[in-house]
Amino acid sequence: MNVNPNFEKLPGSYLFAEIARRVKEFQAADPAADILKLGIGDVTRPLAPAVVDAMKRAADEMLSAGTMRGYGPDFGYDFLVNAIIAHDYTARGVELEFDEVFISDGAKTDSSAIQELFSSDAKIAVTDPVYPVYVDSNAMAGRLGEYKDGRWTNLTYLPCNAENNFVPEPPRGHVDVIYLCYPNNPTGTTLTKEQLKPFVDYAHREGAVIVYDAAYKAFIRSDVPRSIYEIDGAKDVAIECNSFSKTAGFTGMRCAYSVLPHAVKGRGGNGRPMELNAMWKRRMGTRFNGVSFPVQRAAAAVFTPEGWAQCMEAVEYYLRNATMIRSELLAMGYTVFGGIDAPYVWLKTPTADSWAFFDELLRKAHVVGTPGAGFGPSGEGYLRLTAFNTNEKTREALQRIKEL
Amino acid sequence: MNVNPNFEKLPGSYLFAEIARRVKEFQAADPAADILKLGIGDVTRPLAPAVVDAMKRAADEMLSAGTMRGYGPDFGYDFLVNAIIAHDYTARGVELEFDEVFISDGAKTDSSAIQELFSSDAKIAVTDPVYPVYVDSNAMAGRLGEYKDGRWTNLTYLPCNAENNFVPEPPRGHVDVIYLCYPNNPTGTTLTKEQLKPFVDYAHREGAVIVYDAAYKAFIRSDVPRSIYEIDGAKDVAIECNSFSKTAGFTGMRCAYSVLPHAVKGRGGNGRPMELNAMWKRRMGTRFNGVSFPVQRAAAAVFTPEGWAQCMEAVEYYLRNATMIRSELLAMGYTVFGGIDAPYVWLKTPTADSWAFFDELLRKAHVVGTPGAGFGPSGEGYLRLTAFNTNEKTREALQRIKEL
Repeated sequence: MNVNPNFEKLPGSYLFAEIARRVKEFQAADPAADILKLGIGDVTRPLAPAVVDAMKRAADEMLSAGTMRGYGPDFGYDFLVNAIIAHDYTARGVELEFDEVFISDGAKTDSSAIQELFSSDAKIAVTDPVYPVYVDSNAMAGRLGEYKDGRWTNLTYLPCNAENNFVPEPPRGHVDVIYLCYPNNPTGTTLTKEQLKPFVDYAHREGAVIVYDAAYKAFIRSDVPRSIYEIDGAKDVAIECNSFSKTAGFTGMRCAYSVLPHAVKGRGGNGRPMELNAMWKRRMGTRFNGVSFPVQRAAAAVFTPEGWAQCMEAVEYYLRNATMIRSELLAMGYTVFGGIDAPYVWLKTPTADSWAFFDELLRKAHVVGTPGAGFGPSGEGYLRLTAFNTNEKTREALQRIKEL
Repeated sequence: MNVNPNFEKLPGSYLFAEIARRVKEFQAADPAADILKLGIGDVTRPLAPAVVDAMKRAADEMLSAGTMRGYGPDFGYDFLVNAIIAHDYTARGVELEFDEVFISDGAKTDSSAIQELFSSDAKIAVTDPVYPVYVDSNAMAGRLGEYKDGRWTNLTYLPCNAENNFVPEPPRGHVDVIYLCYPNNPTGTTLTKEQLKPFVDYAHREGAVIVYDAAYKAFIRSDVPRSIYEIDGAKDVAIECNSFSKTAGFTGMRCAYSVLPHAVKGRGGNGRPMELNAMWKRRMGTRFNGVSFPVQRAAAAVFTPEGWAQCMEAVEYYLRNATMIRSELLAMGYTVFGGIDAPYVWLKTPTADSWAFFDELLRKAHVVGTPGAGFGPSGEGYLRLTAFNTNEKTREALQRIKEL
């Protein structure tokens, strides 16, 4: 049996696996080292009590035949879908139909699966640097050509760097799909409505689709959009992925949701318009059996008044870390981006090689960051620090960086 | 943007969605009808108390920073992987390495995703009738050609019917992948070691891979294998998908596991052998973020002595239903298969058209079965009844069928 040949084209291992490997190797060589992790974007604050209560009540419902739940609705329970629509969209002036929202186990799962709806020769564009999942999932499906000198030959990179103040321009030529993530992972920067509008206009003009990842929207405190649908015309051209991972500390709980408006269409045989919503239903019905019932109950509790207040306490905690990382690094003389409406701070590394700076940080300060080069060619020369660790450890990490 | 053209080739909607549609339509027309569902294979018994306790304890761990869990290990927690290996494999004489077992949210998810590892022109064989997920997932990936007269032009069907006593023969020509599911969904039949051996031999001879779905193994009481790895040589050629859905009533909880032994290899570029295990790690690392921590704790509790005893009570309950369905239908004069080591009974329909018999059952007896034709060409003329309803409703359904 011949295997999918595209796997062999992938460079090295998945970024975070490579980081974990280096950290493990270092820890093995120096078991006494107290390593502080500001690398992967994993939460550290406990879950909201309202969320845990809801999960336990749901678990108890599973104990009797009258209340136990088997297979749930394919695309999520009403109680969760309706809470999402009311809280995240209607309240912000965005109208969605019930069957335009799909519950899943992760924004990573959804944003890597969405490409299954595209033709095998669809042209893809990503902002650069970028969350590796959009790229790797398309590479595995054979859309990106070959990986040469750190770039995929058939991928359009939209550079985001200090020179353009991290405001990308829409592609010059035609692409079929553009992946955008704001607040951005990895740079922690955001775009205003006016800066997003050209992408929506481009998609209308070119018949392209935007995959918008809003996983970090809970960190927004400024007047920037929390949803692509706040931009006029976006509901015709954009899909949006969301997650409870960062909003509610669900990285270990696993729940997310994606929005596919009926109006978003691709071109089928003989040019026939095909609703991506209908295709996604077929895809999810065939390849997924829904999210755990107690997890969906827990997720719905996020939108109760006490659940939301508790979740936002954790978000504010991380935002205070972000502010501290940003201001301390600035005070040390680093050039720093992001970290205002986002849990990520993106700093210019003193030397151009970001893996070398990653290794230096690990070796000398016992601090784990994420090397920018791992996020794409324009990430070289930068490093990502996350605000998800404890306040104490974040402070300690900054102190050690200061003493580098 | 052009969409994936293979979606347009898919016939109608996913089988169970179509059944749900017909039932809903009938219920709307006759709201008073008390419909008894022996269609979809969903559990009705409550969860084991030991399982619920474990989930609640895990939920409580999420309440404090010292014990909360964020992202889990990519392929599952040690405590669950080790319990699976010890209970399901070592105890039955099958040796597995720790990193050959992968935890996921469903056997449906895994058995539909595994095809991503195969080349786009891999030749696929399925037993016929078949669980539609293997077929549809390959069809969406474009491997099956066109759907004409109820058959995919590039799919090898291995008929299982009364004529061969539901013992399929290996393909005559070359195929790259064979999907097998035993105890079988939909027929409820099993294969002995001697009947499985020719498939393992075929795979060795042809360089093919077997995808073995053992989701129903907990129902086995006879001396038939619970795992493909009980067959000599299978660890070189077979992947195995398993699930807690039927073993432990987890259809609403979502947890499963797949086994990919290191020895199972495909052919990469220049004929280089490629471990499917390594490819799956890359695939799962890129496209999945693990199963909910409390769900994994709940699943591990299935393997405790009290958890197992409680789960097996439910399995025995369903097996008693299966025995009753089987013997009552035989007494009514139906020709019946399966239902011995499985929760499914497969009956020959009085008339050749299985959707017509489905509709008749629904209309006259208010009983929902699953028409055999929905499972493939050789399913025509059969209907599946499941043993997952309550004992009382199963008895009532049989009484109504008797009065047809």
